[in-house]
Amino acid sequence: MFKKRMNADTARELFLDSFEPLTGYENLPVEDCDERIIAEDIIAKTDVPHYRRAAMDGFAVRASGTLGAGSSSPVIFKLDETIKNGTCARVHTGSPVPDGADAVVMVEDTELHGSNVEVFAQVHPLKNVGEIGEDIRKGEVIINKGKRLRPCDIAVIASLGIRKLMVFRKPVVAIIPTGEELIPRGGTVPGTGEVYETNGLMTQLYVRKWGGVPKLFDIVTDNPEKIQSAIEKNIDADMILISGGTSVGKRDFVPGVVASLGELLVHGVGISPGKPTALGLIKGKPVVCMPGYPVAGVVALYWFGREALRKLGNMPPGLEAPVYAVLSEKITSRTGFKTFARVRIENGKAVPLATSGAGILSSVSKADGFVIIPENIEGYDMGETVEVKLID
Amino acid sequence: MFKKRMNADTARELFLDSFEPLTGYENLPVEDCDERIIAEDIIAKTDVPHYRRAAMDGFAVRASGTLGAGSSSPVIFKLDETIKNGTCARVHTGSPVPDGADAVVMVEDTELHGSNVEVFAQVHPLKNVGEIGEDIRKGEVIINKGKRLRPCDIAVIASLGIRKLMVFRKPVVAIIPTGEELIPRGGTVPGTGEVYETNGLMTQLYVRKWGGVPKLFDIVTDNPEKIQSAIEKNIDADMILISGGTSVGKRDFVPGVVASLGELLVHGVGISPGKPTALGLIKGKPVVCMPGYPVAGVVALYWFGREALRKLGNMPPGLEAPVYAVLSEKITSRTGFKTFARVRIENGKAVPLATSGAGILSSVSKADGFVIIPENIEGYDMGETVEVKLID
Repeated sequence: MFKKRMNADTARELFLDSFEPLTGYENLPVEDCDERIIAEDIIAKTDVPHYRRAAMDGFAVRASGTLGAGSSSPVIFKLDETIKNGTCARVHTGSPVPDGADAVVMVEDTELHGSNVEVFAQVHPLKNVGEIGEDIRKGEVIINKGKRLRPCDIAVIASLGIRKLMVFRKPVVAIIPTGEELIPRGGTVPGTGEVYETNGLMTQLYVRKWGGVPKLFDIVTDNPEKIQSAIEKNIDADMILISGGTSVGKRDFVPGVVASLGELLVHGVGISPGKPTALGLIKGKPVVCMPGYPVAGVVALYWFGREALRKLGNMPPGLEAPVYAVLSEKITSRTGFKTFARVRIENGKAVPLATSGAGILSSVSKADGFVIIPENIEGYDMGETVEVKLID
Repeated sequence: MFKKRMNADTARELFLDSFEPLTGYENLPVEDCDERIIAEDIIAKTDVPHYRRAAMDGFAVRASGTLGAGSSSPVIFKLDETIKNGTCARVHTGSPVPDGADAVVMVEDTELHGSNVEVFAQVHPLKNVGEIGEDIRKGEVIINKGKRLRPCDIAVIASLGIRKLMVFRKPVVAIIPTGEELIPRGGTVPGTGEVYETNGLMTQLYVRKWGGVPKLFDIVTDNPEKIQSAIEKNIDADMILISGGTSVGKRDFVPGVVASLGELLVHGVGISPGKPTALGLIKGKPVVCMPGYPVAGVVALYWFGREALRKLGNMPPGLEAPVYAVLSEKITSRTGFKTFARVRIENGKAVPLATSGAGILSSVSKADGFVIIPENIEGYDMGETVEVKLID
């Protein structure tokens, strides 16, 4: 029998509160840090730019000398490397502004005649001059610890001459597929009662996509000693995801093994599909026991596994906006359960997929996302606007 | 001088219409196909399941024999491997339903006494029986060509015994940083007038993130022969991105070289920052000449490079929703230009970053996204709701 069936939100909160984020980090070359979570504040050790630079192609001058210049009344400067009153020097975007100059007249406002430059516009001091530290000031914190790094962040860091970064290490996630009906992919053609193992494969790809390091273990049959041994072999991981054997049947040994090795926090959750999900802790490591039925497994992976991975990996929330769509027909739910209905998005409408059962993985593949129906309502009507959680 | 400055949308349309998507593909193991674009329809060669499977733990029976069974009026069945009237066989979720049985009574509705099973519920035919082909029917198209594959799609494909897939090959993108002020990252400390090369690094990371294969070439100085040689060495790529040397100054040779080797479609675009952007075709390969000023470069990369990569790579549009936020203060734009204002998102508000100039890369790093202001308006007022394009 299940322990008491637990509300989906309560179960998740209890589970996520039971372990701490990883504190370990790696020191990686900056070019390998895209999407990694930085584990240190980055403080600028130099100014950027570290010299006064021209912001335009043109001529560096003393601004005071351009007083009165206009489109029909040019002021004439002499080309000279030494800037004083009445001289100017050619500069390019990004090149240093010579000492003595305090402004750059852009090339479009000049005409060059031999070594004479006619200037047709008046400039004020600092015009088109990038001051030292204008981009980044020495001592400034330019990236805060905990940020998910993007290519533009990495370019800014690299512009300071920094070559390696401390980033939080990725959570290592052991994935153990169980079930005596499973046969390895690529092996013999499955006989009656046999199916290819694909939940482990799917979980592996999601863990990788979500920033973890998956370790897919061999298929384990429905035998408590073998399940125990598989868990013990993988206990050096940061999290363990076990697929199958979570229900209350004769062959469902996984929750019992978790309880014997550590603590079974939850067995039986108010999510549909996904009720047989179990959650535990073994030696402080979070363990998610996902139902073997693939759709239920995906739901458990999204609801529990992904959030646990985020917490372990110190990953900040994203800024993506929720996706809304209008239901093309009504969807019903299982009262008392948080129900994950699969929908396709078509011309801005959410089209429910008519499917039965948690075994129909093709319904997930056909779906663009889930509409999550809360426990206390019976469903949504045709025409209602609903939020769709896209399936990655 | 620029060719005529072109409107941002017109320039993009002209550019994207000038080349075709890649048709080449790769044949990869399914586990390597996450986020890849499938180049074939996947047709199921087998039914899934390929046998009648139990959807619950319980006992397989002839449904007709349960007629009249209820919580206080059990019907008794005898355990027997051969199913006939009055016998039943134990089944587990996913296991085969024996011949002769047409329903499964779930274990919760039974009591076992020796070899007798008391059944406390009436079931109709097919109850708790997953029919052959219930998930996937043989001959069904389960994935259409052109779809971006997700882990759940790959699991469905793998459940059919398929081990390798045809996916479109990733566009190879050559990245050529130019500029005599550039020095390699990790080399000597930059002197006056020198800066570390980081635009190429940033572009490399974005190309990889967006599904291309970046090939970062060495720094090329501002010399037309050397730029020409670098382009010729990289012409086997599917697209060429050149950073720097795109303006109309004395040292800006890139557009001229592109014109001499192929066709310069556009030079000067109504985007701000990013006006010096040039677009061309060399031997049918799209070429984006991005301004060397980093923010202008990022804008050109987003507006032109990313869309070109999507088209080359046959990548379908995503379903992500636009992000909206309320402006915390007004932002002004450059009339006649599509202006990319950088904003931070804070408590649901878009906070403009007060910065000048296209040289300030740190303003991109500090930003969460761009607010794109159309050409024909002067800006947005405080309190207006604006769309924010998140920076990846």
